[in-house]
Amino acid sequence: MSEGFQQKFFDHVDKNQALYIERLAEAVGIPSISSDLENHLGDVNQMIDWTKAHIDRLGGKTNLVVNPLNSDKITYPPILLGEFHVDPKKKTVCVYGHLDVQPAEKDDGWDTEPFTLVEKDGKLYGRGSTDDKGPALSWLWIVEAHQALGVDLPLNIKIMYEGMEEYGSEGLFETIRDEGKPGQFLDDVDFFCISDNYWVGKTKPCLTYGLRGLAYFQVGVKGCEQDLHSGNHGGGIHEAMTDLVRLMATLVDTNGKILVDGVMDSVKPLTPEEEALYESIDFNVESYKEENGVKNVSDKLLYDNKKDLLMHRWRYPTLSIHGIEGAFSGKGAKTVIPAGVKGKFSLRLVPDQDPKQIEKCVKAHLETEFAKLQSPNKLEIELIHGAVAWLSDPKHPNYQAAARAVEKVYGCEPDYTREGGSIPITSAIEEATGMNVLLLPIGACDDMAHSQNEKYNISNMMNGIKVLGVYLHELGKIQG
Amino acid sequence: MSEGFQQKFFDHVDKNQALYIERLAEAVGIPSISSDLENHLGDVNQMIDWTKAHIDRLGGKTNLVVNPLNSDKITYPPILLGEFHVDPKKKTVCVYGHLDVQPAEKDDGWDTEPFTLVEKDGKLYGRGSTDDKGPALSWLWIVEAHQALGVDLPLNIKIMYEGMEEYGSEGLFETIRDEGKPGQFLDDVDFFCISDNYWVGKTKPCLTYGLRGLAYFQVGVKGCEQDLHSGNHGGGIHEAMTDLVRLMATLVDTNGKILVDGVMDSVKPLTPEEEALYESIDFNVESYKEENGVKNVSDKLLYDNKKDLLMHRWRYPTLSIHGIEGAFSGKGAKTVIPAGVKGKFSLRLVPDQDPKQIEKCVKAHLETEFAKLQSPNKLEIELIHGAVAWLSDPKHPNYQAAARAVEKVYGCEPDYTREGGSIPITSAIEEATGMNVLLLPIGACDDMAHSQNEKYNISNMMNGIKVLGVYLHELGKIQG
Ligand SMILES: [Zn+2]
Ligand SMILES: [Zn+2]
Ligand SMILES: [Zn+2]
Ligand SMILES: [Zn+2]
Repeated sequence: MSEGFQQKFFDHVDKNQALYIERLAEAVGIPSISSDLENHLGDVNQMIDWTKAHIDRLGGKTNLVVNPLNSDKITYPPILLGEFHVDPKKKTVCVYGHLDVQPAEKDDGWDTEPFTLVEKDGKLYGRGSTDDKGPALSWLWIVEAHQALGVDLPLNIKIMYEGMEEYGSEGLFETIRDEGKPGQFLDDVDFFCISDNYWVGKTKPCLTYGLRGLAYFQVGVKGCEQDLHSGNHGGGIHEAMTDLVRLMATLVDTNGKILVDGVMDSVKPLTPEEEALYESIDFNVESYKEENGVKNVSDKLLYDNKKDLLMHRWRYPTLSIHGIEGAFSGKGAKTVIPAGVKGKFSLRLVPDQDPKQIEKCVKAHLETEFAKLQSPNKLEIELIHGAVAWLSDPKHPNYQAAARAVEKVYGCEPDYTREGGSIPITSAIEEATGMNVLLLPIGACDDMAHSQNEKYNISNMMNGIKVLGVYLHELGKIQG
Repeated sequence: MSEGFQQKFFDHVDKNQALYIERLAEAVGIPSISSDLENHLGDVNQMIDWTKAHIDRLGGKTNLVVNPLNSDKITYPPILLGEFHVDPKKKTVCVYGHLDVQPAEKDDGWDTEPFTLVEKDGKLYGRGSTDDKGPALSWLWIVEAHQALGVDLPLNIKIMYEGMEEYGSEGLFETIRDEGKPGQFLDDVDFFCISDNYWVGKTKPCLTYGLRGLAYFQVGVKGCEQDLHSGNHGGGIHEAMTDLVRLMATLVDTNGKILVDGVMDSVKPLTPEEEALYESIDFNVESYKEENGVKNVSDKLLYDNKKDLLMHRWRYPTLSIHGIEGAFSGKGAKTVIPAGVKGKFSLRLVPDQDPKQIEKCVKAHLETEFAKLQSPNKLEIELIHGAVAWLSDPKHPNYQAAARAVEKVYGCEPDYTREGGSIPITSAIEEATGMNVLLLPIGACDDMAHSQNEKYNISNMMNGIKVLGVYLHELGKIQG
């Protein structure tokens, strides 16, 4: 982007702020809740059509891919593929976003109607404002700005928007696999960019280069075939809950240390280079305690300094115990001896941990511990979900292009961050295409995605459009 | 009961079998479900009125005591007090029963309509047939038989029937306390008899002289103020579930041994006399395994012989872990770090354990174990329900009268049994009046009270009426 065009582009974006807000209000007004297709399939489809109409209006090609998981029993929304083709000799970036949203009702504790965009103090409140309608739509306004200013796009843009992200991305993985085949939609893509995560702080942009994987286990203990009354049968039965609780107590200690042999063996060692990335990160330990409700309880985290805390949330594995299926879980008192119970726990995995290898370690551990109990009850261990961690390279040209764009808009280098959770689409794209994926978050850490009073700062929206626009031009400069 | 009258009474009862079945069918036809007063208050009231009408018809005095817990917000059914007064110089027995039932729907897995009494192979299927309409109504047919045969009742009979037993006996405890005061309804009662539990086996009658008490605990661990995502925050937080699971693992072992110091100190020692009561009990270990669904799982109980097994279900304390409130309890996978969790466990208490003393032991134990964890999280231990065990004396005249009645009907001595659960009304009556309470079960162990296909054997019904009738006359003989 030439200096001259950059200024014109920024001015154009600034002048259109009210229009961007109005359109985001239209989008937020469509309750495209994917977890409730029975009531909202029409809304999800409407949101996809609304977006398709904008791409069409801007002269893009569009294609609604019938969801590959559709059956006699269920219809899912299609996947929207769009394309702004400039020149076959130019490189191609593919941007991913989702048009569906989490459920929301005013009664959940919203201060305003969740599906009505409300502006207050520079913030736009509404479900989907930051996750992910606001960020996803940015690309359309960037294309529109180029057309208004009479400037060609610096490279080909492909768009992949889905409507099921908040409910498992049903059908997307199959679509990515199919479209990644030779000659298909994703085959000629050089770079991917996803804006569907958040800054680590409130003021400084970041680029996200790593995500943890997951190994989710279910450990079942069965003592009998029906729940029994503890008054009548306590003293007669080997109780399944006793065994399960004792087993789960051997997994991890109060300080988060994983007690399962072998799990830590394959964790990638820390390099000085990686460690250096943590120094500058915009993250405040005290705010973190406050935002997560720890301040008024123990006021203590597992680590009291930024670097250790972030590393243990991002680049070291953890083990969390989530709960128990089959036991009493209500308020008050119920005198039940549960017949069979299933403990749920999961490990967050990091490079180079392999879920299959972790499964072996966990099974061996639980079997050994169960043998020690000398219980006649039946044990069953199941890995119910496994996903490897994802790690990219901050020095990849895709990241460096984004870093330069951030500098031009914000006047500072971005932080290079990782996240503790997984974004399965990221690995799926990388596996299907072999191309680099950039996670470029636009929203701030306090945007409350998935929660009450979700919001999108107007400043983040405006700067986000600018960053993504400049990023395109930086990508356009990449040779070879 | 003279030999002559006894035979006439038995003959009369036998001739009226069809009538008793018809009336039980009427009663079962009224779905008096006390746990769902919103839909069934009218039915519970109708069932009480139906019973009152029979007492009135037989010349008894009746009184519907307005439920003392009624308020602007909720109306409970009244408590029905009835009286067949013979002679102020004669002794008085008060019989208790309940006219409400557990919920039931055909879809729950019933083979027949639950609120239609169906006779099959000598069994009467229907909700409430054995719990407790069948047994409770016996008294009315005994009074009716005396009138038909022109014979005076051998002592005064008072009746106390409630309509809330299956939902906490709301209002009954207050009523018992009030009516136990000098000059009130229960003040002149000499003996109490309750037929609302079951035989230990299928063929041999028993008298129940002991029940275990209860100390129900809730142990809460709080780590933060809101649930967190284990991907984002695993590695940052001292997780409450980790601590709770480790705490609960210290309570009891796989073999049911309670690991809380001091709990066993006050358990009443076993005397040879008490031990002897276990020899003859009609109880089969293999059937027990089968009925409780243990056979096809581990095929192992905590004790493999009748005496140890029964003693540990009846006269030794036990500790059961029931579940966790606040954790994930559904099917599948949810990656939550619960903010605060409450573990539920309870001890069944035996003479001479005091819930307050047990609370001290449990609190000391959990606090010590929690201190070992060195966790910054917040611990909260609460005794949410405490009740002492109840123990009567098989040699009390009230029991001996019943034993003689059983011998005259069944031709054998009854077993003297205890139960592992509590029947709070038992202690409440004893505390309010100081008089002996006899538990005289009529139904068999496989009657499936509270479950699908509840039934009442016709033979148990008929012999039950006879036993209770003879018991009255045996009571009438007691002097002083
Ligand atoms: Zn999202
Ligand atoms: Zn989301
Ligand atoms: Zn009952
Ligand atoms: Zn009952």
